[in-house]
Amino acid sequence: MERGAGRTPYDLERLLAVAVSVFIEKGYDGTSMEDLARAAGISKSSIYHHVEGKEELLRLTVERALDALFAILSEEEMRAPRAIDRLRHVLGRAVEVLCAEAPYVTVLLRVRGNTETERWALERRREFDRHVSEIVTRAAAEGDIRSDLRPALAERLVLGMVNSITEWYRPGQADVTELKETIVAMATAGLSK
Amino acid sequence: MERGAGRTPYDLERLLAVAVSVFIEKGYDGTSMEDLARAAGISKSSIYHHVEGKEELLRLTVERALDALFAILSEEEMRAPRAIDRLRHVLGRAVEVLCAEAPYVTVLLRVRGNTETERWALERRREFDRHVSEIVTRAAAEGDIRSDLRPALAERLVLGMVNSITEWYRPGQADVTELKETIVAMATAGLSK
Repeated sequence: MERGAGRTPYDLERLLAVAVSVFIEKGYDGTSMEDLARAAGISKSSIYHHVEGKEELLRLTVERALDALFAILSEEEMRAPRAIDRLRHVLGRAVEVLCAEAPYVTVLLRVRGNTETERWALERRREFDRHVSEIVTRAAAEGDIRSDLRPALAERLVLGMVNSITEWYRPGQADVTELKETIVAMATAGLSK
Repeated sequence: MERGAGRTPYDLERLLAVAVSVFIEKGYDGTSMEDLARAAGISKSSIYHHVEGKEELLRLTVERALDALFAILSEEEMRAPRAIDRLRHVLGRAVEVLCAEAPYVTVLLRVRGNTETERWALERRREFDRHVSEIVTRAAAEGDIRSDLRPALAERLVLGMVNSITEWYRPGQADVTELKETIVAMATAGLSK
């Protein structure tokens, strides 16, 4: 944790962590380079050594969240033959990702679409939603969940429940295993016939 | 809809609607009196005819949302003998309130606690949550919902699902009845044994 390490990756990581907390506190639109420099305790020109500007910090922030979420879709368990098992897996792992990367996912979920990076992030979020929505549709077709609900709406509400934990979850203050099990149990029972 | 009606309540209502949309766009912290005057198309001093400042506009905004939510708790149906029926009612009506007062509830849900008004709003939200949490606890005690989930956590997740609709709901773009029925069905099935 020594200072003065220059342009090493460690410093970008630390700058990113600071930027994320400022984005959460002030909102991305409300954050200036001055705010970031003050919070990081470095000059604006030092920040420009690392990134082109605040939009690049936003891109790195949402990339970290999106990469973690999309990685779930490539996991071994996502090859399970029944869609209901894939749904359980993706929901449970999404809870873990939200808890592990809480501030990064929080910024991702608050993206509004005013810049190119934000519009890209929104599109990637929609892409993730579509993957989950397809799993819900398949699970209904396989008879494992009720078919009287529109899959796209059911998926949106289930992910809404998952995402809502970023509103109150603080690392160390909640039992992630209980949270994961409760959400998977409520979501799958909620979608059951 | 005539202009120049002076300090009539109608004007305060219109000013409030403008303020709410600016709060959503820029965040409450990021909104200045200049922003409000520009969006309303009136001078700052005209705004001061109506309210003491932006914090009063925030108070009026969150009061409108909170009054609508708390009114649910006094409705006839909330005297139903079984807690599960009261739970169904409060969730369904909360969906209707969120849809009817979407921008006002959205601002309420984004309150962070930096001012006295925000701290008051957070406390009132917690009070509403406690009411719903007690209903969940009673429903579990009456054997109508599963008892293996912590009522406070289950309540938080169910309301998180309800509240998540403010992220995407736009008046006229979704069927409120379908939304209400889907949420009540998923929540009660999700909590069922």
